[in-house]
Amino acid sequence: MHPIAYYQELLANHFSTIATQKQPKNLYEPIAYILALGGKRMRPVLTLMATEVFNVDAKKAIPAATAVEVFHNFSLIHDDIMDDAPLRRGNQTVHEKWDLNTGILSGDAMLILAYQYFENYEPNIFQKLAKLFSKTALEVCEGQQYDVDFETRDDVTIPEYLKMIEYKTAVLVGAAMKMGAIVAETSEENANLIYDFGLNLGIAFQLQDDFLDAFGNPETFGKQVGGDIIENKKTYLYLKAMEFANEEDKQQLLHLFSIQPSDNTNKIESVKTIFDSSGASEATKAAIKDFTFKAFETLEKMDIDSEKKAILKAFGENLMGRNV
Amino acid sequence: MHPIAYYQELLANHFSTIATQKQPKNLYEPIAYILALGGKRMRPVLTLMATEVFNVDAKKAIPAATAVEVFHNFSLIHDDIMDDAPLRRGNQTVHEKWDLNTGILSGDAMLILAYQYFENYEPNIFQKLAKLFSKTALEVCEGQQYDVDFETRDDVTIPEYLKMIEYKTAVLVGAAMKMGAIVAETSEENANLIYDFGLNLGIAFQLQDDFLDAFGNPETFGKQVGGDIIENKKTYLYLKAMEFANEEDKQQLLHLFSIQPSDNTNKIESVKTIFDSSGASEATKAAIKDFTFKAFETLEKMDIDSEKKAILKAFGENLMGRNV
Repeated sequence: MHPIAYYQELLANHFSTIATQKQPKNLYEPIAYILALGGKRMRPVLTLMATEVFNVDAKKAIPAATAVEVFHNFSLIHDDIMDDAPLRRGNQTVHEKWDLNTGILSGDAMLILAYQYFENYEPNIFQKLAKLFSKTALEVCEGQQYDVDFETRDDVTIPEYLKMIEYKTAVLVGAAMKMGAIVAETSEENANLIYDFGLNLGIAFQLQDDFLDAFGNPETFGKQVGGDIIENKKTYLYLKAMEFANEEDKQQLLHLFSIQPSDNTNKIESVKTIFDSSGASEATKAAIKDFTFKAFETLEKMDIDSEKKAILKAFGENLMGRNV
Repeated sequence: MHPIAYYQELLANHFSTIATQKQPKNLYEPIAYILALGGKRMRPVLTLMATEVFNVDAKKAIPAATAVEVFHNFSLIHDDIMDDAPLRRGNQTVHEKWDLNTGILSGDAMLILAYQYFENYEPNIFQKLAKLFSKTALEVCEGQQYDVDFETRDDVTIPEYLKMIEYKTAVLVGAAMKMGAIVAETSEENANLIYDFGLNLGIAFQLQDDFLDAFGNPETFGKQVGGDIIENKKTYLYLKAMEFANEEDKQQLLHLFSIQPSDNTNKIESVKTIFDSSGASEATKAAIKDFTFKAFETLEKMDIDSEKKAILKAFGENLMGRNV
């Protein structure tokens, strides 16, 4: 096994050269642009890591890891259109820098390009990777649709919300790791266990993201703290608060989530007070712990060296220990 | 071999039930909707036909044929957004009936669903189908991009135009037929020859579509005759007229393709007169014949019963003999 920086290094030069020379340039330049914006490359790093967990050289998994990252960036381009987002990682989004049609078509091409990376593997591995990828990609679309649907519904339940974030975010983390297992040709059981590890860690991570969006440190969180509250997003915190709060707080929360003041300072403070007083904050922290624990439990069942388990656990603890 | 109606029948019931029961319904209803709008199902019919050309039961090719038609409809949804088209086959387009985001996301899901149909085949055939599909799908995106680029260029050459329609339209016809060959497990040579047959027939068909758009019979053509002229589309007819016409006609054509009058009757008549007098009409008819002939030549090289060749040739002649 290697430090994360090693895997990031393996990928870094790679992504900066994808699609830069291809024609027509109006199709491929936006692809090169978004892939060069960077980010932590967490998903492809997990694919490379998972391969080495099963004692196979990470380099063998670079095409699969690339597919995961290309797909992730496809979904960012199309999601940014749907959310009408002007910025991505501090830079203009593709549909802003070019236009709507370019965003749609370059995104489509990326989804296809992602599949093409699997062609580097022999037919049996190719089919396993492509099957997992299709299942996952479709779930990501379904998760995005549930997210859109929830905006106009006021009866979203906690299980529905968990399913939405599972599909929209966590399945790709699970799939990224399982792809490493498939490339390493480990047992089906190990492959499914590392999927579950990634899935549960992915859910925990997203719940933590919800939590930090309200309670994170503005100087280190990276996004605008309170963003979800400003946008009236029905996150886990909100749904739990609506479940636990007394009638008065519930009515106030409903009111606060129906307004869009020009200055959000008071709104954010009031909402956070209810999140705390209702017990929603504690419940969210407990849920994060539960899903992290579930991930670690899965780890124990895996048939790998205990040293490898320790590395995966440390990775998970590091990821979940962010106090940003 | 069977009559075309037999293949259409095999597909008809099939498409009307795809995706109708799946959740979330806001994602899958638009998919069921566009697939139920019908059309001639020419591409999947060609996949089924090609399978039987190589003496294998067409039913074995239904999943591959379905993938081709689902992909084609994905591209229609996204193209209709890009063209801002209100109608498709006489019905509301998906983004009109629902909204932009639904059109994007349902289209994305269809592209993934198309790949999933290949999972019905064993790994070797799966990989061959998926590889051909990815290559083709990417070319279709590139063709669409070239088409968009050409709108704002005034130096498009005939070879560039031919490449655009090859990518945007013809490669999918070739791939549809080659998929039948792959499912039938015929020789690589036969598979490549039937691809070339479909490709050249596809180019001929698109050139004929350009021609009929100007000179077709309004009562039977199905689309508005003169539509390309109204939209100032630089078709083969236009490019040839610009190549052949004398300076005066060239200037008039340039002028006519820069205006958008409220009544287009005179514009259409004037343009058609130049298409005829310049020799562009004859040149287009000659090109249609050339590509059709190329397709038939390819047919001769194929290692199949002469009876099968006759059927494919009759199909081509029928397709190209439309005097609509």
